[in-house]
Amino acid sequence: MVAPKISEWASSPAAFDFRSDTLTTPTPSMLASLTHASLGDEVYLESTTTTSLESRLAKLFAKPAALFVLSGTMGNQLCLRSHLTQPPHSVLCDVRAHINVYEAGGVASLSQALVTAVRPSNGKWITLEDVKKEVILGSDIHYAPTRVISVENTINGVIMPLEEIRRISEFAREHGIKMHLDGARLWNACSVPDAPELHEYAALVDSLSVCMSKSLGAPVGSFILGEKKFIDHGRHMRKAIGGGIRQAGLLTAMAEVALDEVFLGGRLAETNGYAKRLEAKWRALGGETTLPVDTNMVWLDLEKRGVSMEVWMEEARKRGVRIGGGRIVCHYQNSTEAIEKLELAMEAACKRAIKSNANGEKAGDVE
Amino acid sequence: MVAPKISEWASSPAAFDFRSDTLTTPTPSMLASLTHASLGDEVYLESTTTTSLESRLAKLFAKPAALFVLSGTMGNQLCLRSHLTQPPHSVLCDVRAHINVYEAGGVASLSQALVTAVRPSNGKWITLEDVKKEVILGSDIHYAPTRVISVENTINGVIMPLEEIRRISEFAREHGIKMHLDGARLWNACSVPDAPELHEYAALVDSLSVCMSKSLGAPVGSFILGEKKFIDHGRHMRKAIGGGIRQAGLLTAMAEVALDEVFLGGRLAETNGYAKRLEAKWRALGGETTLPVDTNMVWLDLEKRGVSMEVWMEEARKRGVRIGGGRIVCHYQNSTEAIEKLELAMEAACKRAIKSNANGEKAGDVE
Amino acid sequence: MVAPKISEWASSPAAFDFRSDTLTTPTPSMLASLTHASLGDEVYLESTTTTSLESRLAKLFAKPAALFVLSGTMGNQLCLRSHLTQPPHSVLCDVRAHINVYEAGGVASLSQALVTAVRPSNGKWITLEDVKKEVILGSDIHYAPTRVISVENTINGVIMPLEEIRRISEFAREHGIKMHLDGARLWNACSVPDAPELHEYAALVDSLSVCMSKSLGAPVGSFILGEKKFIDHGRHMRKAIGGGIRQAGLLTAMAEVALDEVFLGGRLAETNGYAKRLEAKWRALGGETTLPVDTNMVWLDLEKRGVSMEVWMEEARKRGVRIGGGRIVCHYQNSTEAIEKLELAMEAACKRAIKSNANGEKAGDVE
Amino acid sequence: MVAPKISEWASSPAAFDFRSDTLTTPTPSMLASLTHASLGDEVYLESTTTTSLESRLAKLFAKPAALFVLSGTMGNQLCLRSHLTQPPHSVLCDVRAHINVYEAGGVASLSQALVTAVRPSNGKWITLEDVKKEVILGSDIHYAPTRVISVENTINGVIMPLEEIRRISEFAREHGIKMHLDGARLWNACSVPDAPELHEYAALVDSLSVCMSKSLGAPVGSFILGEKKFIDHGRHMRKAIGGGIRQAGLLTAMAEVALDEVFLGGRLAETNGYAKRLEAKWRALGGETTLPVDTNMVWLDLEKRGVSMEVWMEEARKRGVRIGGGRIVCHYQNSTEAIEKLELAMEAACKRAIKSNANGEKAGDVE
Repeated sequence: MVAPKISEWASSPAAFDFRSDTLTTPTPSMLASLTHASLGDEVYLESTTTTSLESRLAKLFAKPAALFVLSGTMGNQLCLRSHLTQPPHSVLCDVRAHINVYEAGGVASLSQALVTAVRPSNGKWITLEDVKKEVILGSDIHYAPTRVISVENTINGVIMPLEEIRRISEFAREHGIKMHLDGARLWNACSVPDAPELHEYAALVDSLSVCMSKSLGAPVGSFILGEKKFIDHGRHMRKAIGGGIRQAGLLTAMAEVALDEVFLGGRLAETNGYAKRLEAKWRALGGETTLPVDTNMVWLDLEKRGVSMEVWMEEARKRGVRIGGGRIVCHYQNSTEAIEKLELAMEAACKRAIKSNANGEKAGDVE
Repeated sequence: MVAPKISEWASSPAAFDFRSDTLTTPTPSMLASLTHASLGDEVYLESTTTTSLESRLAKLFAKPAALFVLSGTMGNQLCLRSHLTQPPHSVLCDVRAHINVYEAGGVASLSQALVTAVRPSNGKWITLEDVKKEVILGSDIHYAPTRVISVENTINGVIMPLEEIRRISEFAREHGIKMHLDGARLWNACSVPDAPELHEYAALVDSLSVCMSKSLGAPVGSFILGEKKFIDHGRHMRKAIGGGIRQAGLLTAMAEVALDEVFLGGRLAETNGYAKRLEAKWRALGGETTLPVDTNMVWLDLEKRGVSMEVWMEEARKRGVRIGGGRIVCHYQNSTEAIEKLELAMEAACKRAIKSNANGEKAGDVE
Repeated sequence: MVAPKISEWASSPAAFDFRSDTLTTPTPSMLASLTHASLGDEVYLESTTTTSLESRLAKLFAKPAALFVLSGTMGNQLCLRSHLTQPPHSVLCDVRAHINVYEAGGVASLSQALVTAVRPSNGKWITLEDVKKEVILGSDIHYAPTRVISVENTINGVIMPLEEIRRISEFAREHGIKMHLDGARLWNACSVPDAPELHEYAALVDSLSVCMSKSLGAPVGSFILGEKKFIDHGRHMRKAIGGGIRQAGLLTAMAEVALDEVFLGGRLAETNGYAKRLEAKWRALGGETTLPVDTNMVWLDLEKRGVSMEVWMEEARKRGVRIGGGRIVCHYQNSTEAIEKLELAMEAACKRAIKSNANGEKAGDVE
Repeated sequence: MVAPKISEWASSPAAFDFRSDTLTTPTPSMLASLTHASLGDEVYLESTTTTSLESRLAKLFAKPAALFVLSGTMGNQLCLRSHLTQPPHSVLCDVRAHINVYEAGGVASLSQALVTAVRPSNGKWITLEDVKKEVILGSDIHYAPTRVISVENTINGVIMPLEEIRRISEFAREHGIKMHLDGARLWNACSVPDAPELHEYAALVDSLSVCMSKSLGAPVGSFILGEKKFIDHGRHMRKAIGGGIRQAGLLTAMAEVALDEVFLGGRLAETNGYAKRLEAKWRALGGETTLPVDTNMVWLDLEKRGVSMEVWMEEARKRGVRIGGGRIVCHYQNSTEAIEKLELAMEAACKRAIKSNANGEKAGDVE
């Protein structure tokens, strides 16, 4: 299958939306796929479209089994719930991890686990050395031992290197700790030049979740991957939170199109390119970013450039572009026109920048 | 809108499936609705198809607010989780209730609540007198006080009378206990002659869940209804279990068709009629049912009729009809042909019945 | 050591208290034991009095390890929490079990487990047949599988036969289900003629709790017993609920006296005898009991005898005897005088009985 | 009552123990108090010694109600459990707080709450500014809102100023957030010159726990304080975790002696003085501490002084003094002899110090 050209999306509401890559909308080809989708009941394991895509994902990641779930959050929570047996227990992760910050405390409410939130000493990703300082080993009754180390890749758009995950993974295995990978945007990490394969990341962890509705653009859904028994438990627990999906084939048919067209169709390299282009523009305007632009996110350091949030939001809004503050998230449905408008917004905002550096130069003068 | 005639479904795999009414499949009109569905992100509250259907449901049930959720189980669990504040607490329900038996212990795992499972003294539904015997009032520290009474209607296809719910509700309100109604199949209870309106049931409870994918035949989803603040909490907790649905408009567009065509289109009275017809046949063959046939379920008393489970399943299977033991669940996608086949299976099975009554008559001789 | 004679307790407030055997008070010998108690910190494992009594208990019950805990409830809850790993899971027990009724829902709040509450078909204890009807085997995702079967002995003063526990235990082991015994009053069950030994009961279960402060009369505490790893987990989880006891030696020194004087000193046979005597009196007055009087509890059927609760309570109160309704709980600190007073109260109450039997005889006329 | 002079303790095993102030042992006067203790059952509210001490504590802290609990951990956990109603919710505290680090993850396992662990920017205690950076306000469904801010005083022996607690408290109240104070060692904070009164701290929080067995030296127990309804819930939840204490009068009688003799008897000022003396010695030897010595703890910066942990432990052990690494915890049962021995150990260890500073001076040469 061939993905639609970018021009086709120019009129979609998603084209000008840089708030998040969850905001992509289903393509005509996704909707067309519905006519062939299995209508069997997934709770009864009769949704053949779903079970066959689960098998395909399992193969792609070289893991024994996969399960379709409603969202990345559900996927992460079910993986953690299935690794964690009984308290006292804790999960170690980056302080900025989705499971720590954006999942409404699910780790505690569903799994009764404490979170050990680690600040990355390099500001980009947690290293084995960071982990070792905070991990809770042994069985001292005062502590809640680390039972899972959860890494995230990409994290805020930054690629956590395979090698670092390998080091942490070896340490974890040595101490009987399970490894989970929140790979919502692993697709992006594997779409840069010389990137490792999906299965190379997967081989280092006991479980992972990957999202079909963020950068891939399917309307709904994620997959979790791991050992057969682990996935069986996830399926059981999924039912207890009401996560069984009756005619799931409708959703998995569209997810399969997203996989084929967007990831396998090579569209994410393009997406990553949009971010690079925007970064280049920002740098040309004298700006810096708070994080490296490895994939599809650009984190503008507005403060350093002397641009107020209000001015920046206003300039974007004027041009019909939606952004979530200093964070720009690119996706394959953004249009060239939208990117140009965003560049114009950058220029206009920098023109209105206030003096902010120590030398007394007006930051806005740079350009 | 006009629902498809029964004949249109004759070739659908659901037509011959009497295992459950979850097994209905999306109709052409449901699929057609996708072309008009909002593609906005529901987590960002931008799925206008979803929010407008939520408003419509709220109006239909005369409740302040509604929320779309993935399943009946998720709906029940979120309602209980939102009513229950902190342990010690317990939920009182019929011992056969879905929340007690079929939701994989979600009440305990998500809400940390004990279940007080009440056996209905009349064998059909729990009465106020049954409730009073088991409810835990007061604040004795040995007990987990009843904070929610959850009723289910229909329960196993039997209608729990409005008047009984009203009596329990008055008792609950007097004691500061919340009332929840698992109304997965309330649609059926409101599709019999002289039935109360949906909002009359809703008025008696603090919250209810109604299912779009069981008797109504939408592919996926349920709604919960209650006070605005209650629904807000449900939405928040839904996120913590990963129940946020990105492009939910695809699912709610189909759910709206199901509501219009099946419930408002009057198809459930027909469905209930199928069950009556099958019951009549079974009685003509000398059979009895273990529960009254109020709506779309027929519970054959195979044992009393001397029919072994194996024989019954075999005779149905031979005719291409799928059943789940002695329970027959009718839905609006069953075909006339399928019903006739099931009647033939009843006849054949009764012919093979073994002697089982006290008088020494061979039960199979009855016909 | 020799236990004080009953006369020494005549003036104790406990002597006339038949509400519960938790109401016994520490004896002079228990207080005397404090002068020799270890003052080491138990959380640091430096309370030698505690660790040596734990070893002694382990030996007595022929289990690998034991742990001192604050109460019977804490003991049961820690055992269940340690057997149960992750939801979905459920615990099967008698509907009247302490863990189901009197522990404020701890099974759900601490262990996130559903309770399957079984009604004993014989009205006295649950049988293997009762268990088989309700147990949840297999891995169907709709259910919360039974992971622990918890039995209680004595249950409401009635001895659950060793043989029945053995049958249930064999079934449980066959299906990978753990067995717990709430043996708060197992001491009483082992103090009747021809009773099994403590370790015979213990051999049939994976864990048990025994209470030092109910029939044995220590001021505070229980022990749990099981495999070493299991007990280690219990110790860890005990900390998470704040159950670590600093100078526990003070409590365990007194508990050891209770074990020596009351159980090993043979005082419980006496206690059981008080109950038999009271039962005989009640029967002589035409009364019946709602449960057999196997050990130290007598459950008067006041209704059948036509005695109102108010009259009964009043007659006891007049004589300075405290009772909890129709339930009489004997303990080794009851005095002969107290028992005589209670007999007089029975007589007086029966004289005031109202006509209540079918024959139209005034129940009060019997004597 | 008059507390025993320090010399009386010289032979107690606690005298030479600087590992923790939990290691104090009951005094003769505490044991003597047992003869007057109520033997009533506390679960039945018949332990008059306990209820009267609860009232006395309530008065001392000017709070409506108090509850005796087994430990500081149990006290904190019950307070949090009672403030927190339903997830999604989180608790904000200092990253070093006892509830975050030493309570085996109880916040997550008992209360299903996420912890937001804040690093104090001043290295000593968290400020309002620190809190504001991390607190989760509002109702965005992605987050688990902060429902409780928990402060600890003293924290690692350092006094958190009343004024800072007041600022945080005002902020918390403005946003409907509950305030808890882990006041295990608040006694010490109130035993320095010009210290605020206990009730001044208590007035700023919704609940607090204070420990009788750490610096005060009672064998077992803590109290929690707060509104009547709050304490009632704590009592109820205490039962669910098996924290009911039968003959609690034995423990509360001793706790009352500890309050009278140690805190009201002014012994903690002495204790704080021991720490000052040891700090002075260490500084005279060229050492520094990692935290200010406000009360009874001295945190030696061994590394900076070039003293290896092994050497330091060895020198202390040689002199019969027990320490837990670089942390020295003083309590009122330490003897003058023990303090002198510890000073000798400091001297000896510094003599063996290795060169460690940038100037190339051998650190050990300083003295």
